[in-house]
Amino acid sequence: MAHLNENFLKLEASYLFSEIARRVSAFSKANPDRDLIRLGIGDVTNPLAPAVVNAFHAGVDEMASESTFRGYGPEQGYDFLRETISEHDFAARNAEISAEEIFISDGAKCDTGNFQELFAADSIIAVPDPVYPVYVDTNVMAGRTGTFADGRYSGLVYLEGTAENNFVPPPPDTHVDVAYLCFPNNPTGATATREQLAEWVAYARAEKALLLFDAAYEAFIRDDSIPHSIFEIEGAREVAVEFRSLSKTAGFTGTRCAFTAVPRSCMVYDTAGNAHALHDLWNRRHCTKFNGVSYPVQKAAEAVYSPEGQAQVTALVDGYLENAAVIRSAIQALGYPPAGGENSPYIWVQTGGDSWEFFDRLLNEAGVVVTPGAGFGRCGEGYIRISAFNSATNVQTAMERIAQALG
Amino acid sequence: MAHLNENFLKLEASYLFSEIARRVSAFSKANPDRDLIRLGIGDVTNPLAPAVVNAFHAGVDEMASESTFRGYGPEQGYDFLRETISEHDFAARNAEISAEEIFISDGAKCDTGNFQELFAADSIIAVPDPVYPVYVDTNVMAGRTGTFADGRYSGLVYLEGTAENNFVPPPPDTHVDVAYLCFPNNPTGATATREQLAEWVAYARAEKALLLFDAAYEAFIRDDSIPHSIFEIEGAREVAVEFRSLSKTAGFTGTRCAFTAVPRSCMVYDTAGNAHALHDLWNRRHCTKFNGVSYPVQKAAEAVYSPEGQAQVTALVDGYLENAAVIRSAIQALGYPPAGGENSPYIWVQTGGDSWEFFDRLLNEAGVVVTPGAGFGRCGEGYIRISAFNSATNVQTAMERIAQALG
Repeated sequence: MAHLNENFLKLEASYLFSEIARRVSAFSKANPDRDLIRLGIGDVTNPLAPAVVNAFHAGVDEMASESTFRGYGPEQGYDFLRETISEHDFAARNAEISAEEIFISDGAKCDTGNFQELFAADSIIAVPDPVYPVYVDTNVMAGRTGTFADGRYSGLVYLEGTAENNFVPPPPDTHVDVAYLCFPNNPTGATATREQLAEWVAYARAEKALLLFDAAYEAFIRDDSIPHSIFEIEGAREVAVEFRSLSKTAGFTGTRCAFTAVPRSCMVYDTAGNAHALHDLWNRRHCTKFNGVSYPVQKAAEAVYSPEGQAQVTALVDGYLENAAVIRSAIQALGYPPAGGENSPYIWVQTGGDSWEFFDRLLNEAGVVVTPGAGFGRCGEGYIRISAFNSATNVQTAMERIAQALG
Repeated sequence: MAHLNENFLKLEASYLFSEIARRVSAFSKANPDRDLIRLGIGDVTNPLAPAVVNAFHAGVDEMASESTFRGYGPEQGYDFLRETISEHDFAARNAEISAEEIFISDGAKCDTGNFQELFAADSIIAVPDPVYPVYVDTNVMAGRTGTFADGRYSGLVYLEGTAENNFVPPPPDTHVDVAYLCFPNNPTGATATREQLAEWVAYARAEKALLLFDAAYEAFIRDDSIPHSIFEIEGAREVAVEFRSLSKTAGFTGTRCAFTAVPRSCMVYDTAGNAHALHDLWNRRHCTKFNGVSYPVQKAAEAVYSPEGQAQVTALVDGYLENAAVIRSAIQALGYPPAGGENSPYIWVQTGGDSWEFFDRLLNEAGVVVTPGAGFGRCGEGYIRISAFNSATNVQTAMERIAQALG
């Protein structure tokens, strides 16, 4: 008899964004004439930048001719893209990450979900609360937790992000083996200072722990004092892995390209205490279970880093940041204290009360989709996340409708 | 201290195709003037079909304009593609697989590698020998095996494909929970008859076992009596999952699109014996760890199924099948008995002796890259796999060079 992985039965009924999609779909069916504005899932709305589109087309054209056709590429990605990323995203910020330490993939969600496969089943895992659900759910599936009760899984260490610590939890006072961090944070929009990240690196070095650093939103940082990469912090190369994505940086949510930086000097240990290079393990996993990103997509991704591409994608992000400022001030005017929304596309709003109820209220009364904080963990209860990913007009309209509904 | 998943340490030194790439690269560096012909990894060489290229460009153009831009798509793939596949690949062959039972992905390697996550850690797994290494390696990583010795991992049930059974192993005489099958087979090129597949379905129904059926090479079937899908067999919907790919069908190895069919009626069981729908589990896994295939790639994939696209990709496959016939007769003329190469792009050649030595000999003396049979398992020792994926001219030249080297 084929038995299932019973860890799946521990999962809450559904993945957060699927549940939102379900409620929105039900609402739309019941109210076919109501016009909805989506500030929920955090999906970009602006088209790809012209430089990216041109490179994408050129990549497709190469696939159309025998002399330039590309079959299987390197699973880790083409050198042209890995080298470009190494130079622009790391060397330019004095972070040392070589091209061969960069693994191109089809999504940071995939990479953050898959990376836990490299660790022992009994690893002690720390996750932020509130948190992007993928970190938690993938560890549940892997059997690193007990059951779910009161918004939490037993067996995980929760790092609480609250108004008191400005949503930047300090390292725990107990040992953990692996800690997920995300800055600029999803969902709170918080950013971490150099000193706060240095404290985490020091903790990881002392504990021989690993930091899984999700920097998917780094392109939104405009304050020069805030690090874009964990590898800007001295000593991080031995204890950290970083996840990046072009989804929000360059509007690639439907195009699919991301990457993960795994330094050669980052080690994990066997039960005898011998060190093993995490890079070798991830490389083996990547080559065995992945077959590389579509070639034209990699060409499109490379164009993000051209001078023309950089100017264009920076303008896209600037537009979303202007939306964020609009949302912040509108929500503040309504008497709700906002966090985030500066150096981040997310505004984290303390509403009090049941956050799914608040979600339903905004959906029904304002026709605006947001994300209920409770979907991100117990500390998210009483909050909603508003995303700045939409047109300026839609954001303006949405905030007027919210003002009317809540006024 | 962060501990690694020590199951990774049980893996043989490297993934088969990485090892081949390493040897070929070393040879090329040492012999920069030698021209190599690659009949090894099984990568296509013909460019994308014109209908596919046009649709790919059109998809990119949609991403360039705000009114047609696509962000996150459904993780399971767009309905336009799922419906097209349901109709063309299944309904047209009297196999009942609905659109919602089809999950679009970026590769059959990924799907065959990831699917085992749904099963209990102590599942009894049967794998063919010889076998595509991904089925085995991903179960090793998941801890379902002991250590490796004499070409085999303890804890797996090996289904031996030999000249005696025409490389179509019958169901085992013991219980297994999950069995991987692949027809047309990689590496042997063997195909299974309707009766042979019916025997497997009967076994799975009797044992409440699951068949993971890899049909990545079904487009090469030209004999009308051979099933293309396991779902052409009555009773398969309760006990089988099928993996398909556009990689070999339409030259998508560098473009990346595949799909997996998981019938709603296919069940797995918890330890109390309660049935759970495999479809729900895979859907949860897919939504949590995957973010859908690039939109323009899905548009390109849809075009494979248009009348124009079908004519063009059939012509591509026909060309490879003509190469296969050339290889078969050339190798037979040299006195080596070939299997496969009819209804398959792979020719499985009994050479005797050490297959890595034979690989090196062909590389050094003929400048031709093949795949050593031992890389596919113990039963592959004494065989090599020759792939028909190359131009007609290169295949002709390669066979002449092989004749000279072995003559």
